[in-house]
Amino acid sequence: MAVKSKIALFPGSFDPFTKGHEDVVRRGLIIFDEIIVAIGNNSSKQRYFDLPNIKSKIEILFQDEPKVKVAIFEGLTSTFAKQKQANFLLRGLRNTTDFEYENTISQVNKEINPDLETIFLITSPHLAFISSSIVRDLHKHGGTISTYLPYKI
Amino acid sequence: MAVKSKIALFPGSFDPFTKGHEDVVRRGLIIFDEIIVAIGNNSSKQRYFDLPNIKSKIEILFQDEPKVKVAIFEGLTSTFAKQKQANFLLRGLRNTTDFEYENTISQVNKEINPDLETIFLITSPHLAFISSSIVRDLHKHGGTISTYLPYKI
Amino acid sequence: MAVKSKIALFPGSFDPFTKGHEDVVRRGLIIFDEIIVAIGNNSSKQRYFDLPNIKSKIEILFQDEPKVKVAIFEGLTSTFAKQKQANFLLRGLRNTTDFEYENTISQVNKEINPDLETIFLITSPHLAFISSSIVRDLHKHGGTISTYLPYKI
Amino acid sequence: MAVKSKIALFPGSFDPFTKGHEDVVRRGLIIFDEIIVAIGNNSSKQRYFDLPNIKSKIEILFQDEPKVKVAIFEGLTSTFAKQKQANFLLRGLRNTTDFEYENTISQVNKEINPDLETIFLITSPHLAFISSSIVRDLHKHGGTISTYLPYKI
Amino acid sequence: MAVKSKIALFPGSFDPFTKGHEDVVRRGLIIFDEIIVAIGNNSSKQRYFDLPNIKSKIEILFQDEPKVKVAIFEGLTSTFAKQKQANFLLRGLRNTTDFEYENTISQVNKEINPDLETIFLITSPHLAFISSSIVRDLHKHGGTISTYLPYKI
Amino acid sequence: MAVKSKIALFPGSFDPFTKGHEDVVRRGLIIFDEIIVAIGNNSSKQRYFDLPNIKSKIEILFQDEPKVKVAIFEGLTSTFAKQKQANFLLRGLRNTTDFEYENTISQVNKEINPDLETIFLITSPHLAFISSSIVRDLHKHGGTISTYLPYKI
Repeated sequence: MAVKSKIALFPGSFDPFTKGHEDVVRRGLIIFDEIIVAIGNNSSKQRYFDLPNIKSKIEILFQDEPKVKVAIFEGLTSTFAKQKQANFLLRGLRNTTDFEYENTISQVNKEINPDLETIFLITSPHLAFISSSIVRDLHKHGGTISTYLPYKI
Repeated sequence: MAVKSKIALFPGSFDPFTKGHEDVVRRGLIIFDEIIVAIGNNSSKQRYFDLPNIKSKIEILFQDEPKVKVAIFEGLTSTFAKQKQANFLLRGLRNTTDFEYENTISQVNKEINPDLETIFLITSPHLAFISSSIVRDLHKHGGTISTYLPYKI
Repeated sequence: MAVKSKIALFPGSFDPFTKGHEDVVRRGLIIFDEIIVAIGNNSSKQRYFDLPNIKSKIEILFQDEPKVKVAIFEGLTSTFAKQKQANFLLRGLRNTTDFEYENTISQVNKEINPDLETIFLITSPHLAFISSSIVRDLHKHGGTISTYLPYKI
Repeated sequence: MAVKSKIALFPGSFDPFTKGHEDVVRRGLIIFDEIIVAIGNNSSKQRYFDLPNIKSKIEILFQDEPKVKVAIFEGLTSTFAKQKQANFLLRGLRNTTDFEYENTISQVNKEINPDLETIFLITSPHLAFISSSIVRDLHKHGGTISTYLPYKI
Repeated sequence: MAVKSKIALFPGSFDPFTKGHEDVVRRGLIIFDEIIVAIGNNSSKQRYFDLPNIKSKIEILFQDEPKVKVAIFEGLTSTFAKQKQANFLLRGLRNTTDFEYENTISQVNKEINPDLETIFLITSPHLAFISSSIVRDLHKHGGTISTYLPYKI
Repeated sequence: MAVKSKIALFPGSFDPFTKGHEDVVRRGLIIFDEIIVAIGNNSSKQRYFDLPNIKSKIEILFQDEPKVKVAIFEGLTSTFAKQKQANFLLRGLRNTTDFEYENTISQVNKEINPDLETIFLITSPHLAFISSSIVRDLHKHGGTISTYLPYKI
């Protein structure tokens, strides 16, 4: 009997995709057969960084890694997971605030789709202070953000 | 001498009122003589679910429970408590994030009205992941929300 | 039909009973018809302060308050609650560490006895830093502890 | 090229092994090719439950699941992982206290063995209040513990 | 050789400046030679209280304390610190939510400017429940806010 | 008028003194005129590492830094601070568990000695996972601990 592929969705708004996100994806590669970086697009919410540009940057970042795919989705994460035949969600945890939030969200996702298991990695400590919202804030105020991004913008 | 009635306000925006809220009210009934579900209406903030409709759903939900009243209020919770002769606030705690928030709010309410005591219940674990904001998010993206609500919408 | 009395157990090792404990009992009196300060005695664990002495101090402290009783118990809190016909446990919350612990314990108590509801108060902020273990530590090292105790020792 | 087997160590003192532990192992089975329940034995620390008995109970519990092995180890988790060719540690997270502890431990394990990745699952909410120390406490005081264990003791 | 002055920036939006903020500044005075209360002005974000008025209130509050200066800035905190030759940031911690946030921000500030050290004080417990956002909320709903402010508004 | 020296006590059991502790001392040097590493010795509690040896290691570590002194004390931290004319306590914060503990302790120290201010630094992220108890655990089980210590043992 063929063993089922382990496909994980790594969902987020990635506005922008940071070195912290890259850390989680690269470490997740030893667990999963395929990781889909799934950029959630919320039409009613204005993004700060250009969506097609971010998608393209992530694709180039992982161009030598055929196990990583990049996709844009609207709607529920669990619906998109089913559509992509992903049986896992991959998430990083940086601190207790993240934990409380992810604890809640993972229960909802399991309630909607009982076959969808969320797997957590703890973000590497030297990257745990990076968040997309801080990067946006820095950029808005003219700060240097290249230190936090795994590509040039 | 007549014993003073124990009247509790259960304040919130209830946008919408969830099974988690229902859990706190039903468990609170063994402590209080009356519980007023107090729907805070903030005129400057757009609600997602229709206010009169939610009020009506809560009233029908507790129609066999004469100790539960439902009311809409604007302004400060502590002011409305005084107006309703409520000497207690009833609140549910789901996690440490809730705790830190409620810790702050309860001190403010006591500062304003020293006779107003806040009583906490810990939300039952199988309901602790439900939040109004997650329910709104699910609904916005076409997800099923009936699992989280104690009434049909 | 007679209304059932609201009897709460306020369990703890109270080694010693502090001003923080007193704060929770006094504020609990407006909710409950009777509060039993239940001193847990664990025969396999050495106490620092003398048990009969602490019991006597608590009794004197509340001698003008007939709604407060003091008792010593061994074994499970939920068993002693049943024996005393207490339908409530009363507990104070000082911080998130307390919350995580009480969250766990209250579920266990409810699992054992589904009719036993735990009611929480948040300790008043000017008393929230007091813990029995700190008082013991201070006493051990010759520090003044009278500031933290509602009686002379 | 042969794909490397995904072998995870699920380390703990398991004094005793609870339904919460079972939940993590069963959910981990869809990720890993083999899970070794690794019972840490600390010769200088007295166990409450009999070690060979607990080992045998876990083996019987998973007797129809050939992917689960049970082993006893002394010394460092990371050393035992290397010895068993396990490239993963599997851990459950119940709350923020767990998170803070595991955050620390996982960094130490990675420092010792950079190839050892720790994978986290969040314990199912209806089991998250169970801890081995609470089960021991209940047993010590004559309480029923069968509700928390996936086997008879 | 002349010893370098210890100049600290105390940054915030101070919308409004509360007794909690005053507590941190006054206690910080025994550490620093100069404290600059730095009011962050974000042109794209509407303030609730009038900026020049708040600045003037803080100046009057500390008019007898020559070590305290008040300034308005736009852009990054670390840039303004450099401009003012401040080698320290001073921040108050009220609870774990504050801690998680400040933990993140202080790493970013150190990444941008390795010579900028953030020094923390824990807010005095009787003031720890005060936050600018609660004060705004109270004011919006017609509540009394003078209790929380070290000046009349 | 002579400016009062800024003398800080950095208290702990330092069993052993780690790179995390060194980080806090070195960063504290830019704030204080003198830092006394104060090794608390609790005669009723067995140490794992030899006390005179640890003291000597810390002295050698800071031998080129005349502002750092090392001392052993018994009894209360606040009493020893007074004896050494230290007006500050210096403490590192690694995570929310540390924060909750230090929050409590710093209030007690201020209650005992209102002139004793506790100043906090957040431990650098790449060192925040190091704790004396983990180092002891590693050593007990034959692990390498030199990575975590700023000296050879």
